Amino acid sequence: MGAIADQTSSSNNTTHPPPPLDSSMEVLPMDVHKVALPPPQTSLQKLKVRFKETFFPDDPFRHFKGRSSATKWLLAVQYIFPILQWAPNYNLSLFKSDVVSGLTIASLAIPQGISYAKLASLPPIIGLYSSFVPPLVYALLGSSRDLAVGPVSIASLIMGSMLRQEVSPTKEPGLFLQLAFTSTFFAGLVQASLGILRLGFIIDFLSKATLIGFMAGAAIIVSLQQLKALLGITHFTTQMGLVPVLSSVFHKTDEWSWQTILMGVSFLLFLLLTRHVGMRRPKLFWISAGAPLASVILSTLLVFAFKAENHGISVIGKLQGGLNRPSMNMLHFHGTHLALVMKTGLITGIISLTEGIAVGRTFASLKDYQVDGNKEMMAIGFMNIIGSCTSCYVTTGAFSRSAVNNNAGCKTAVSNIVMAVTVMVTLLFLMPLFLYTPNVVLGAIIITAVIGLIDIPAAYNIWKMDKMDFLICICAFLGVIFISVQEGLAIAVGISVFKILMQVTRPKIVILGNIAGTDIYRNLHHYKDANRMPGFLILAVEAPINFANVTYLNERISRYIEDEKMGEKQLDFNYVILDLSAVSAVDTSGISFLMDLKKTLAKRGLELIYVNPVGDVTEKLQRANEIHSFLRVDSLYLTIGEAVLSLSSMMKEQP
Amino acid sequence: MGAIADQTSSSNNTTHPPPPLDSSMEVLPMDVHKVALPPPQTSLQKLKVRFKETFFPDDPFRHFKGRSSATKWLLAVQYIFPILQWAPNYNLSLFKSDVVSGLTIASLAIPQGISYAKLASLPPIIGLYSSFVPPLVYALLGSSRDLAVGPVSIASLIMGSMLRQEVSPTKEPGLFLQLAFTSTFFAGLVQASLGILRLGFIIDFLSKATLIGFMAGAAIIVSLQQLKALLGITHFTTQMGLVPVLSSVFHKTDEWSWQTILMGVSFLLFLLLTRHVGMRRPKLFWISAGAPLASVILSTLLVFAFKAENHGISVIGKLQGGLNRPSMNMLHFHGTHLALVMKTGLITGIISLTEGIAVGRTFASLKDYQVDGNKEMMAIGFMNIIGSCTSCYVTTGAFSRSAVNNNAGCKTAVSNIVMAVTVMVTLLFLMPLFLYTPNVVLGAIIITAVIGLIDIPAAYNIWKMDKMDFLICICAFLGVIFISVQEGLAIAVGISVFKILMQVTRPKIVILGNIAGTDIYRNLHHYKDANRMPGFLILAVEAPINFANVTYLNERISRYIEDEKMGEKQLDFNYVILDLSAVSAVDTSGISFLMDLKKTLAKRGLELIYVNPVGDVTEKLQRANEIHSFLRVDSLYLTIGEAVLSLSSMMKEQP
Repeated sequence: MGAIADQTSSSNNTTHPPPPLDSSMEVLPMDVHKVALPPPQTSLQKLKVRFKETFFPDDPFRHFKGRSSATKWLLAVQYIFPILQWAPNYNLSLFKSDVVSGLTIASLAIPQGISYAKLASLPPIIGLYSSFVPPLVYALLGSSRDLAVGPVSIASLIMGSMLRQEVSPTKEPGLFLQLAFTSTFFAGLVQASLGILRLGFIIDFLSKATLIGFMAGAAIIVSLQQLKALLGITHFTTQMGLVPVLSSVFHKTDEWSWQTILMGVSFLLFLLLTRHVGMRRPKLFWISAGAPLASVILSTLLVFAFKAENHGISVIGKLQGGLNRPSMNMLHFHGTHLALVMKTGLITGIISLTEGIAVGRTFASLKDYQVDGNKEMMAIGFMNIIGSCTSCYVTTGAFSRSAVNNNAGCKTAVSNIVMAVTVMVTLLFLMPLFLYTPNVVLGAIIITAVIGLIDIPAAYNIWKMDKMDFLICICAFLGVIFISVQEGLAIAVGISVFKILMQVTRPKIVILGNIAGTDIYRNLHHYKDANRMPGFLILAVEAPINFANVTYLNERISRYIEDEKMGEKQLDFNYVILDLSAVSAVDTSGISFLMDLKKTLAKRGLELIYVNPVGDVTEKLQRANEIHSFLRVDSLYLTIGEAVLSLSSMMKEQP
Repeated sequence: MGAIADQTSSSNNTTHPPPPLDSSMEVLPMDVHKVALPPPQTSLQKLKVRFKETFFPDDPFRHFKGRSSATKWLLAVQYIFPILQWAPNYNLSLFKSDVVSGLTIASLAIPQGISYAKLASLPPIIGLYSSFVPPLVYALLGSSRDLAVGPVSIASLIMGSMLRQEVSPTKEPGLFLQLAFTSTFFAGLVQASLGILRLGFIIDFLSKATLIGFMAGAAIIVSLQQLKALLGITHFTTQMGLVPVLSSVFHKTDEWSWQTILMGVSFLLFLLLTRHVGMRRPKLFWISAGAPLASVILSTLLVFAFKAENHGISVIGKLQGGLNRPSMNMLHFHGTHLALVMKTGLITGIISLTEGIAVGRTFASLKDYQVDGNKEMMAIGFMNIIGSCTSCYVTTGAFSRSAVNNNAGCKTAVSNIVMAVTVMVTLLFLMPLFLYTPNVVLGAIIITAVIGLIDIPAAYNIWKMDKMDFLICICAFLGVIFISVQEGLAIAVGISVFKILMQVTRPKIVILGNIAGTDIYRNLHHYKDANRMPGFLILAVEAPINFANVTYLNERISRYIEDEKMGEKQLDFNYVILDLSAVSAVDTSGISFLMDLKKTLAKRGLELIYVNPVGDVTEKLQRANEIHSFLRVDSLYLTIGEAVLSLSSMMKEQP
């Protein structure tokens, strides 16, 4: 009988030799449970399982199993075009709901599209183009029923600020547009690749805390940019940071235009009021949803009536009517700006993907349906690739518009089609109406839209829950407003990853005690009714043991032993029990550590006992034992209780 | 009575309000143990504990507690100068051992010093200088008794190759030397800072697997460089990679010199033979230890006798006698090469620190004494800072020489002092003797020294233990020999960190079953005698739950539930028990996940039960419950057994 029982020996022929244990050792009492080796698996099988868990955790092909090949084809086509799943059951009542919600989000999408395009330093018409083709593509490929697709504020801000680093949108508008389309193409490529290569988990590294800080910072940066329009300043800084913008604002007080400020503040107050009403009474969502379009119409009429464009109020001006033009010929994959364009594509792609996926998942969980993250990434990616060929810039599912879409009762992606058709009608027939639309109203619309990104209650909750997470949130926020949008994000992601690494580098070790009258062993410092077992020091390690923490574990365990032996307590014990239940993995350094610790403690007259190693750890201990033969028959137990019982009885037997 | 029992309420006034649980709920049976809140701690106290565990895990000041201030001063001085701890008890018998081992390592240090300096493209004399001052400094500051201090091969190789990127050692030898000293200063600064700032754990990120691959690759690169000397080639590539070196060797066959090759191969065979003897019979260590010096003397005599320097055998030539000159004036902290010098200092500093600390720890654990990692870093750091001011380049504890030191019976750091004195005598009086020493012998000495860095059995052990670790090892190896020493190392560290992140991103979730007749619940797929409990799905998560894995956990748990319900087994259950024993931490995303999972499962008619959360997790669940009130009286149990028992009895009571 060995310390590691080979379960497979009874059922089938085993390839593991029995552990080379000293057979002259005392035999354990028969009622003690043995630590078993997991069923044997080849390295290839393990690799396969690991691969599946890494890249296919949701097992997307499980519905394909055991179906006829015709069904498989149908399922595959439905997988690519989710519209084929629900279109056959589509009916008039669903359509009615979708028309209402589609018109509602169109009334938001038109003014926001124009505004966000300006935020990205692009011609306003590009914002409308981007609200026409991408929603149609998404309706075919996307699996969310609530996502309202179009340009979004943060991606627009980042794209504009990054491209402006190398090219001026006023001096070389043609080149700037080319770079924007090419960046959009790369953004789509990155997004689709993440989905196809099943690397969607990369966006998981943007934690909630990071996003809350980042979004709040970006909202402030976006709002500050609107001061140009709201104050009527003509010579404005091209930088994004808090400091240069504010200094620009207060050094140009001579350019402030009271007419513009009056108009801007009035409409801003109106929009904020309607937003407040819409939030307090979800049934009145249409008030906040319709307000931006109403503001555009009203302000346009005012300018037209008072000829205000001659009194210092700047207007959008003439917009070319007609649908999206093909822009394949504007994609350039060479030249001096290629590195910038790829970087811009990567960052805007990941940021807009994060927003789109988060929005899709939020509403899916509200309505209790599933959204396949990797599938969604492909949909959003192809939407942007097609968009980049049809004069659109980066689009994704926008949080604010999706919320309105959901409130307005949308049922399927048809609401996106209705919105696209409405935008198409606008593009074909209504463009001359924007001639007198004042820029100041667009600024007010953007501020109202992004103000919702500042989520103070959420930040307060994070503060209450986890101070470290709050620090990450604040770093993202301050980084964005004082350094730059990209660097703020990079800092926050860096701290988040560092936090994970620190948890691994400094795992928790706790001393366990027995809860009187039971077999339960729990943290002595947590449970006051847990008692130290005389003669034993029981430690539990709560993390995988690997190269990054073996040095720490070594030092920490030595200190525990010294503290207990030499400290005030002057406890005496011969056994150190190491509970490995929570050690989910070990690497070669970890195994060396476990082996060396046993030897080091033996030199000090202490015996180390391992309790309940998980499958992988058991297997590695066994393999190390085949080489170094350090395990004895009583070195491994399945539970702490059994180890204590069995070792206590041995102690008594000895003289 | 609440699901979370507030342990503190009986002993002292508590600041936690009782959890807002529905008091009309059924009361649990009295014999069920409750999950307790850990003793209350303020955020500041927690931060203090976290800070201590991160930076002072070994609690270096524990010996200071409760001592008089005079004793504290003495302890502090002894902490800085460990020599004061052991010098008072030093005696003649210890001195005898130290003299023998000191002379032995000196006989190695002199030829190796000259050789390694040439490897770093520095004048050979610098290698001797570096074997004189640093050992003296280390004897004062260091706490290892076995470390033999001096130049080492890998750090020499890296420093030479990095500095050659910008400055040619043949065209601008003065500038090259300045850069080498300045890099050494920065290396010392980095090392001392890591120690003082208690950031020593940074070197833990160089795992054993990484180091084995890296060292083997570096040994091959170093050996290839020696082909220049061994073949007598005069026009040799300045690149380091395998491909350019071999192409250089075979394109310059006309420069091969048969006299050099004959001499080189003979001495190489002699050295390898003595090395083999020394390794097989540790008692004959002096044969391998003395062989390099014997080779130098013999080859010098041969060259002198046959006037071989006129027959194509290149010799070291005239070396200036005298001790180290001050080189403070050669440190330059400005100019065009500053970035390179800082980078070189950082990389050579960390690499040589890793070697020094690893060597110190290895021998300390062999002789069962403690080496304080952070203290050692300060010692090595100050040694290099002082070295950079006294014409020395980067030094550390060398593995091969420390092994010889240990075999020769060294007792204290006095062996380093003996070695330094021997080197001093050489510098003062024996320099003219090196006039005729052939370079080819130095090449043979280097090859023999670095060949020990290729540890094939260790690599094979890694292959047997952990395939992923082996991949890291191979990447480091191939990266070093085909790309570059620094990049190979960076790739391997990158993969190691990525492996840790992947473990966190894809934590293990296992299904537990009951081992018949016990209260023990273990992995169903590991223990064949574990049985599924009807009516329950028992899952255990084996990692901290955080932003990087909540999406995965969500998908994976959904799939488990679907598999069990819909799959072949068609099992019916109403309770999902989540064993949180191994969840050592949660962040805000993790708490949201635990909360949302309970709500989602409730929608599907399943009840989620949390079992045995650790202190920190319990506290956060409680705080989240204060806001969202999602816990019921029967949502939390201390053990799976009690949860199953209590819930089964409730199920029976219900109609």
